[in-house]
Amino acid sequence: MDIKKLLVPNDSKIVFYIADGLGGLPHPDYDYKTELEYAKTPNLDALAKRSVLGRTIPVRHGITPGSGPAHFGLFGYDPANFEVGRGVLEALGVNFPLEKNDIAIRCNFATLSKDGKILDRRAGRIPTEEAIPVIEKIKKATQGKIEDVEVFVFPVKEYRFGVVLRGEGLVDCIPDTDPQKVGVKPLPVKSTCKEGEKTERILSRFVEVAHDAIKDENKANGFLLRGISKLPDLEPFPSKFKLKSLALANYPMYKGLARLVGMDTPEAGAQFQDLIRMLKEKWDEYDFFFVHYKWTDKAGEDGDFLKKVHYIEEFDSFLKDVIELNPDVLVVTGDHSTPALWKGHSWHPSPLLLYSKVAGADNQERFTERTCKDGYLGTIYAHDLMPIVLANAGRLKKYGA
Amino acid sequence: MDIKKLLVPNDSKIVFYIADGLGGLPHPDYDYKTELEYAKTPNLDALAKRSVLGRTIPVRHGITPGSGPAHFGLFGYDPANFEVGRGVLEALGVNFPLEKNDIAIRCNFATLSKDGKILDRRAGRIPTEEAIPVIEKIKKATQGKIEDVEVFVFPVKEYRFGVVLRGEGLVDCIPDTDPQKVGVKPLPVKSTCKEGEKTERILSRFVEVAHDAIKDENKANGFLLRGISKLPDLEPFPSKFKLKSLALANYPMYKGLARLVGMDTPEAGAQFQDLIRMLKEKWDEYDFFFVHYKWTDKAGEDGDFLKKVHYIEEFDSFLKDVIELNPDVLVVTGDHSTPALWKGHSWHPSPLLLYSKVAGADNQERFTERTCKDGYLGTIYAHDLMPIVLANAGRLKKYGA
Repeated sequence: MDIKKLLVPNDSKIVFYIADGLGGLPHPDYDYKTELEYAKTPNLDALAKRSVLGRTIPVRHGITPGSGPAHFGLFGYDPANFEVGRGVLEALGVNFPLEKNDIAIRCNFATLSKDGKILDRRAGRIPTEEAIPVIEKIKKATQGKIEDVEVFVFPVKEYRFGVVLRGEGLVDCIPDTDPQKVGVKPLPVKSTCKEGEKTERILSRFVEVAHDAIKDENKANGFLLRGISKLPDLEPFPSKFKLKSLALANYPMYKGLARLVGMDTPEAGAQFQDLIRMLKEKWDEYDFFFVHYKWTDKAGEDGDFLKKVHYIEEFDSFLKDVIELNPDVLVVTGDHSTPALWKGHSWHPSPLLLYSKVAGADNQERFTERTCKDGYLGTIYAHDLMPIVLANAGRLKKYGA
Repeated sequence: MDIKKLLVPNDSKIVFYIADGLGGLPHPDYDYKTELEYAKTPNLDALAKRSVLGRTIPVRHGITPGSGPAHFGLFGYDPANFEVGRGVLEALGVNFPLEKNDIAIRCNFATLSKDGKILDRRAGRIPTEEAIPVIEKIKKATQGKIEDVEVFVFPVKEYRFGVVLRGEGLVDCIPDTDPQKVGVKPLPVKSTCKEGEKTERILSRFVEVAHDAIKDENKANGFLLRGISKLPDLEPFPSKFKLKSLALANYPMYKGLARLVGMDTPEAGAQFQDLIRMLKEKWDEYDFFFVHYKWTDKAGEDGDFLKKVHYIEEFDSFLKDVIELNPDVLVVTGDHSTPALWKGHSWHPSPLLLYSKVAGADNQERFTERTCKDGYLGTIYAHDLMPIVLANAGRLKKYGA
């Protein structure tokens, strides 16, 4: 069955209002309530009353996703079928015009000892301004080329920078050189596949030349390669679902993910209210809107229950503006759970809410992990959500006679 | 795993009591109740008390099925794996003895203007009696043969008729000639695959000859080809599940679907009570009984909430007769949902009830979308129902030692 054959575009508006790491766990210090249960969320509660609830499993039972797989699931791609490297994600996140067979690498500046052992895997977390002149030295030393391969070097954020190799016969079967600990040397560049010889040689040479150029730096006198990767071969979201699509996110990573699947990702500003303002401005121009709220995840990662509660409440307060736009289909969920109790991304299903005139209604008083468990939508894979959304938008015709 | 190896026939009786388009949605004009919630269904309610409930997804999440895929799912075939054209379904519906490589076409009589443009895509919905003499003219003109290909032409119902081509090298990669609008000419017969040349030529010739034969008709002076298709290659239901199977339906389409999977489909009569009478008559002769109630779907398609409620109540009243036969396994469900609010087939899961002595019981007071949501059987794909039914009938032995 090819869902694409069933698509019938119309002028409906679809919004995915996503709080990163939304789902939580009952916390012993807070009366065994989850972050959502503890938070005051009048807008979500009112919406829950006239929506259907459910839960999404980001990848598979028990699997904790990174941001990439978690978002691909939401975007309707089965994230168990492919993996996207961190190198690609970082390059896209800073708007690097990545091409089909480019090899993208994320690099972390590191501080090395005289004998080349790692003292600090993040070079004292130097700020972007400090990193930029060091990156310039690397660019100057490599002069943009090694053998017949073009070499692009660019800053990302703080102690991170990106490298892209462009040329014939390059592959991405090269593991990280980051040994994930201090007191040892960075790992050598070593390919794990037969066709990897050229890439290994080019990249080793790059590491050698670049290290030589920055060896006198105080903190950033070395670097580690991570997430050496290529673009996956995905059909872009706008053609896959026939939706002119806008992604609104404050953080480069999420813009990068959205750009990878072909959504438009304008620079909206650093604050969440900037995204909401742009949502209103662009309302007439698009069919599909992905709105990404990052701070819930950060608070969850910090293990700060009350901070996550606070951000859930902020996320809730902006929901009002979204509802006032009167979308035909409104989805509220997370990309994955980040329970404060767990202090990191987790495998727990994400609470899910879907509003449309023909979705039905669970008649629940609140939007929480527990009410969602009993919801009409049941517990589904995140990548099964898009067809349900399209159906609710009247954008899918009948399958078969 | 091959379920066929696990089958152990016995003398149990299984009934599928199916209301077409049964599932509905909460309706704002009726106190946000669904059709099932609004209806008075004493027999279903009493049965629900001692049965297990659940929901079926006809094809996949978000996918709205036509009657074909919806029934194949119920019959235990995964409908995402194949598609059956309307031409095949219509031919089977009127008992045409379709053979393996036949090309079946459903035709609609249409009214054309002097310059060949479509004035009415259904020729004023002429009744069957009016269509038959026109069909005779076409039969006479084509004389049953074009080149080496046999041509069968037969009435279906009202303004519809069927055509079957039988011969070497015929294919079904030819789209409808119905442009789905008036004021334009019918589309030419045009194959979309490499091997389509012969079929395109034969069918174009048929269109030419037949149109010439009926050009002086008042209303039915033209026709449109739809659903040009071949039989799919399915293992018949009676051998797939080792069940001698009887299908009871008033409408040709559903008899056609049942015949396609090899069930016996006697002519029972035009009323639902005729089916119930025949169910009793044939009780000793079969293992499996498919009883199809059509009117719930029609009322849903019309968007007539109260009419659908009425038909649900009629469906409920006949359930009593079914229960009195004392089947070992009794399934009550829909093939898909047809909410009055949506006015058409939809993607919403179908409420499902399964009674057997070893099914367990949800102890629910009613049989509705909401009680089914919380049911013991959970939400399953329709094609996963048959193994559960066979297990409840004691017809499946252990898998592995």
